[in-house]
Amino acid sequence: MKKIAVIGGGAAGLTASIYALRANAEVTLFEQFGLGGLAANIDRIDNYPGYASVEGWQLAADMSSQAKKLGLKVIRQRVLSLKKDGDEFVITTDRGEYRYPAVVVATGTSHNKLGIESDYVGRGVSYCATCDGNFFKGMPVAVVGGGNQAVREAAYLANLCSKVYVLLQGDSFTAEETSVADLLAMGNVETIYNVAVSAIGGENSVENVSLYGKDGKENRVLDIKGLFVAVGATPVTDFIDIGEVKKINGYIAVDGRSESSVKGLFAAGDVTSGALKQIVTACADGAKAGSFASAYSAAVLKNK
Amino acid sequence: MKKIAVIGGGAAGLTASIYALRANAEVTLFEQFGLGGLAANIDRIDNYPGYASVEGWQLAADMSSQAKKLGLKVIRQRVLSLKKDGDEFVITTDRGEYRYPAVVVATGTSHNKLGIESDYVGRGVSYCATCDGNFFKGMPVAVVGGGNQAVREAAYLANLCSKVYVLLQGDSFTAEETSVADLLAMGNVETIYNVAVSAIGGENSVENVSLYGKDGKENRVLDIKGLFVAVGATPVTDFIDIGEVKKINGYIAVDGRSESSVKGLFAAGDVTSGALKQIVTACADGAKAGSFASAYSAAVLKNK
Repeated sequence: MKKIAVIGGGAAGLTASIYALRANAEVTLFEQFGLGGLAANIDRIDNYPGYASVEGWQLAADMSSQAKKLGLKVIRQRVLSLKKDGDEFVITTDRGEYRYPAVVVATGTSHNKLGIESDYVGRGVSYCATCDGNFFKGMPVAVVGGGNQAVREAAYLANLCSKVYVLLQGDSFTAEETSVADLLAMGNVETIYNVAVSAIGGENSVENVSLYGKDGKENRVLDIKGLFVAVGATPVTDFIDIGEVKKINGYIAVDGRSESSVKGLFAAGDVTSGALKQIVTACADGAKAGSFASAYSAAVLKNK
Repeated sequence: MKKIAVIGGGAAGLTASIYALRANAEVTLFEQFGLGGLAANIDRIDNYPGYASVEGWQLAADMSSQAKKLGLKVIRQRVLSLKKDGDEFVITTDRGEYRYPAVVVATGTSHNKLGIESDYVGRGVSYCATCDGNFFKGMPVAVVGGGNQAVREAAYLANLCSKVYVLLQGDSFTAEETSVADLLAMGNVETIYNVAVSAIGGENSVENVSLYGKDGKENRVLDIKGLFVAVGATPVTDFIDIGEVKKINGYIAVDGRSESSVKGLFAAGDVTSGALKQIVTACADGAKAGSFASAYSAAVLKNK
């Protein structure tokens, strides 16, 4: 019997599971939170092939139920470390230790922080508009960032809030042009280029933010109730305690079969060094990782 | 204005179009037949993430309408050649000549042939069970091949035909194990290992096939009405008239951005050297090719 572990229950991990299960492997998925990953928190997804337009939670639910129907076993524990012991991988969680011949890491990324917001997180500062936007209905808010995530969050908030400031450090967006055009066409969105947030003000919760420009001078104070931080993400790999895993800028380097530099250790989705970070590319990574991890597991177990 | 051409209207080409259109490129898709490619001919798809189980035509239709809603322009002409002229790519069809700064090749593969069946094609020999299976309702048929396509075709036919022989050259299937197990559980399926088809007999249409074994001796004659050939495929690249396109076993070699060895020439899906040939991997290739081809096109046109 082949068996593999998948760490992370987003689009990449779920697709890895689907492919491994269909290859007759016993699959254990480790996920501390709900299944669906980042996709589940996206308000509306328009570029996943086949779904003309779908709410993120729906796509996530479709993928989860597809994997569960095939017999996916989910362990809802936090993974503390991944080590190598002989030809086995050892996963240690907050509640136990598990061993597998092959592992797929699909842990995605965690939100980058501005560095000045820690006192206000949950008190006006948020990293997820679809999660927290509703608290700011009819109020002015700001979004920091110019990538796809920032534009998505800003557009979502513009439908809820009285005013949305979009704060960019540079002089242009890096997001998809269509999405940017759609955002800028909304009447209550104001884009401020070439600024950074230098301070957050407010007694018990966010009341304003101070901006400073490229010249190093403070140039504006915005009265807002919510500050949404969307300034990129960092791959979640710190639990991996195997020295020789090759990385590129912190992301796990994988080959065309989604295998890392360590035999039997596969990676998929946002945690990898892939050139395009999209749901469909995460799924494709997962399909490869699930398939080849199953084959690897079968080969290891056969030799025992 | 960015503009790109996509050659081939399967899952890879459609996703390339969706991503390029959303990046604000003008996209022209060349496809001589219907949209949807190979996926459209698959009876039932169980491993495309999000769709627990879907008929191939439906998934193909969903992707096509998604691309069309975004403004896809389709030219229903046969592409005869793709050449390079300075920094432009020149596409010549049976009815005209077109020029683009960037091109995505997503032409997929064509069916391999046994080499002995030419007189019987359309007279009992077929390369597509979902297209032609219905002609053989209640009759005995054979499928040649042991990969995913062969197993899918055999399972489809087993629901229609009185008897399905599955003829394998080797001693095992290479298809997904779950699919093989499902197939072998069907009462009217008989697998014959280690054989090849040496001859087809019949007046006006297929009446029987002769098999020979590994020992070189003829070992059996099967009375059948239909012979379904599913012995792999060859990438469709013969129209590409650019010397320096690097290939691996005939498949176009691409980097992590789906770009070929020729700048501005991208490739996606089954025509590439990708390690796993699935609808979702074709889509991911397409997403990358569409995104990076658009960016390349914008850069070329800016410098003019």
